Amino acid sequence: MFISFEGIDFCGKTTQIELLKRYLENKGRKVYIVREPGGTVISERIREILLNKKHLEMCDETEIFLFSGARAQLVREAIRPWLSEGNVVIADRFFDSTTAYQGYGRGIDLDSVKKIHQIATGGTVPDITFYLKISMAESIKRQELRKTDLDRIERSNDNFYERVISGYEQLALDNNERIVTINGSRSPEVIHEEIIEKLNEKMILSS
Amino acid sequence: MFISFEGIDFCGKTTQIELLKRYLENKGRKVYIVREPGGTVISERIREILLNKKHLEMCDETEIFLFSGARAQLVREAIRPWLSEGNVVIADRFFDSTTAYQGYGRGIDLDSVKKIHQIATGGTVPDITFYLKISMAESIKRQELRKTDLDRIERSNDNFYERVISGYEQLALDNNERIVTINGSRSPEVIHEEIIEKLNEKMILSS
Repeated sequence: MFISFEGIDFCGKTTQIELLKRYLENKGRKVYIVREPGGTVISERIREILLNKKHLEMCDETEIFLFSGARAQLVREAIRPWLSEGNVVIADRFFDSTTAYQGYGRGIDLDSVKKIHQIATGGTVPDITFYLKISMAESIKRQELRKTDLDRIERSNDNFYERVISGYEQLALDNNERIVTINGSRSPEVIHEEIIEKLNEKMILSS
Repeated sequence: MFISFEGIDFCGKTTQIELLKRYLENKGRKVYIVREPGGTVISERIREILLNKKHLEMCDETEIFLFSGARAQLVREAIRPWLSEGNVVIADRFFDSTTAYQGYGRGIDLDSVKKIHQIATGGTVPDITFYLKISMAESIKRQELRKTDLDRIERSNDNFYERVISGYEQLALDNNERIVTINGSRSPEVIHEEIIEKLNEKMILSS
């Protein structure tokens, strides 16, 4: 089972992934968490280039190629072997992030983005994707509470984030068999319960 | 004027580029040489990942994305600004290398390769490309003479190189308006003269 979590920063992905991991491990499953970009030696080297705060001159096209290169390596070196051994893989962001951020956000032609995804994933796509939906205002509020230092991509302006959010909305509409939208502004426990519920529905449907 | 040089390793690109640079500078032109992958801070960082001898696990898809990311950055940060100032840019390898090596050589679907090129170059393509054609046997002979230490991609097997050579042949056929095939097994001086001749023809045609 391959599960991905999506949403803008501070939407609660990390917390939900940890809760889900614990839940599935208690059920006796082996769970691997991958974060994008990263997760292999080569992908982590690519991550360093992408998130380096000095690389302000990076153009949008370079950005999408680097994310896709990191993903291509992660899929073949980690995700596929783990899945083929019957484990659960939970991805903290996967190709939907690239569609939302580089496609809708940066404005790279969506057909090209799709073609790039096909090459990068080679058909390895999540069985289910949870989109934790929060507003831009909520994201900013949580960010201020945590006083986090922002990376290069996180420093993009608000208009960019509004386009990313619309992108996620459109993705959820276009892929309603795979993407489940979850109201991310509620308490972690309530969200976790809904995720388990949806997962059970899906697991029953697929068995 | 944007000129690129193509061909397998040891085909004589570097020598010819130096001779052409000197020739054009004597004619009063400002000439920039770019080598792929590289040529900008970000592209050089990508180059380090690509040519690192330890990265033997790199998959073909990661390779094409990294080359394309380095290219996208080089085009926008260096090649376009230089061309727009009226300078000559000579590229030691450009997108034809990716088609030959990653498309024909590694077997990545050629339509996808084309789409990736469109995004990476954004339409900035060479006015003329010189393909210095030598045989695999000639390349091996020259390599042994120079006792060069090989990088990760150069260590690929002979079958791979035969596919790369066929790829260049096909590219030259498909793009005969742009790609000029030059017999690279002759002396540097003779080759240089032919290149100048072809360039003058082209310059006359385009003016």
